[in-house]
Amino acid sequence: MLDICLLGTGGMMPLPYRWLTSMMARYNGQSILIDCGEGTQIAMKEKGWSPKPIDVICFTHFHADHISGLPGMLLTMGNAERTEPLLLVGPKGLSRVVASLRVIAPELPFVIDCLELTENEQSIAFDGFKIEAFKVNHNVPCYGYSIVIDRIGKFQVEKAVSLGIDKRYWSRLQHGEVIETSEGTFTPEMVLGEKRKGLRVTYCTDTRPTDSILQHAKEADLFICEGMYGEPDKLKKAKENKHMTFYEAAEIARKAEPERLWLTHYSPSLNRPEEYLPAARKIFPKTETCKDGKTITLLFEDET
Amino acid sequence: MLDICLLGTGGMMPLPYRWLTSMMARYNGQSILIDCGEGTQIAMKEKGWSPKPIDVICFTHFHADHISGLPGMLLTMGNAERTEPLLLVGPKGLSRVVASLRVIAPELPFVIDCLELTENEQSIAFDGFKIEAFKVNHNVPCYGYSIVIDRIGKFQVEKAVSLGIDKRYWSRLQHGEVIETSEGTFTPEMVLGEKRKGLRVTYCTDTRPTDSILQHAKEADLFICEGMYGEPDKLKKAKENKHMTFYEAAEIARKAEPERLWLTHYSPSLNRPEEYLPAARKIFPKTETCKDGKTITLLFEDET
Repeated sequence: MLDICLLGTGGMMPLPYRWLTSMMARYNGQSILIDCGEGTQIAMKEKGWSPKPIDVICFTHFHADHISGLPGMLLTMGNAERTEPLLLVGPKGLSRVVASLRVIAPELPFVIDCLELTENEQSIAFDGFKIEAFKVNHNVPCYGYSIVIDRIGKFQVEKAVSLGIDKRYWSRLQHGEVIETSEGTFTPEMVLGEKRKGLRVTYCTDTRPTDSILQHAKEADLFICEGMYGEPDKLKKAKENKHMTFYEAAEIARKAEPERLWLTHYSPSLNRPEEYLPAARKIFPKTETCKDGKTITLLFEDET
Repeated sequence: MLDICLLGTGGMMPLPYRWLTSMMARYNGQSILIDCGEGTQIAMKEKGWSPKPIDVICFTHFHADHISGLPGMLLTMGNAERTEPLLLVGPKGLSRVVASLRVIAPELPFVIDCLELTENEQSIAFDGFKIEAFKVNHNVPCYGYSIVIDRIGKFQVEKAVSLGIDKRYWSRLQHGEVIETSEGTFTPEMVLGEKRKGLRVTYCTDTRPTDSILQHAKEADLFICEGMYGEPDKLKKAKENKHMTFYEAAEIARKAEPERLWLTHYSPSLNRPEEYLPAARKIFPKTETCKDGKTITLLFEDET
């Protein structure tokens, strides 16, 4: 079970009733935040989700609307008496930017580790899930992120019994361990069924369409993509500013075939994104425009 | 006519429905902002006041809740195509802190000048008003600010006529100029009536009670003062954290006799400041607790 909340849906500057674009995910007691603009901590509080258990904050890039809320967020996490280390992930320069912003948040009761992305594609493993970072195409170095939960096959009791594997090894095999015993070597493949479909959420903002986005959004359970402009005549502006229109995002989704597409990162001039939804749905029917706080709980196929 | 808006009333961290404490003043086409925490630009937009014409931003100190909104505010002013220089005023270290925060707002279409306060009392003259900075007592260097509009006497037409002063000199005399002519020297005192009462607004947060606050709040038209805690049993905490209770703020007001006291900078734990208002009013009857966006238009005595 993976909870996803799109805390805000705005681009460029926070507005009354439209927080800056940011996404929070909760899985198995762990929390991940992607981007943290001015006001993200308030959006989180409004939603009723806590910043305290956040394990990792990923930054797409260092434009202010994606990171200006970091000092306040760190202080609020500190005020909640968090002591666990926090991992920050982002493009090259992350340590320098974070150190600079911390001029107003110098003392914290927890350690901050910075992981600077250096490759076009980079995967970071966590307990039970991974984050895949992929380079996109903006006017500064910028990354998209996929949260991926792989799911191994179901444990086949009959197989374990027929192979005469002692019960005390079952749990370890189930968790992917290879067991060497005097009776022989047992591998997970021997007792697990076919690999089951996991979960994938792909997030990208501040970019032109790229093949990396298409590859990452492929069959995603949720594809969150920027749609800075809904007005069809803003394509030129989107190209100039290295953003996307609704229709470009929908076109990626049409090819990648995710379960659903959520559009976000609306220009401050775009008052009613839903006006342009029917046109986007002509390209990809499972497109949705979003309001701050939009939430979904994604379940594994065999979870009910 | 001086417009004052208390954009936010919170201390420590921004909350849904309570912005961080910040004050905006508008006088004669000029705007002044005191403090700029996370979300101040949204509070301003909510109020319908524009950041573009802000001439000066004063910072009481560099705790994040008073300055974390600066990068976003600067970018929003830049997006509004402001080109006039902006003056920032604050304690020593201002240039360093601002430069550090500007890691995410490096390019702006206007010049920023930083004025670092070095004295316990410092006055800065602007066109038609002055800002008086005064040191207060927090756990880091911290200043309060008074906005002061002096008002010269009324122009006495009869006097000017009886002294035979040519009409073309009247306006210059009215604006304080001394005129040397072949007919003699004319001074403003010769044609102006008694000095009239001007306007004074005094603002302080993040401080224990000090004599400097008392002196500055004396007969102010509006005294905006922190009241971090309403609960009477929080005096010890107030002392430890170098803040004030409602009753300490009211006690300053009782001695300083301003026209009105606005309490602000409430602790996040203080849900209903108005609960403690009756007790504060026993000390100073003209005390008011505030909600975000509270506004007043202050008029000169003879203005209607």
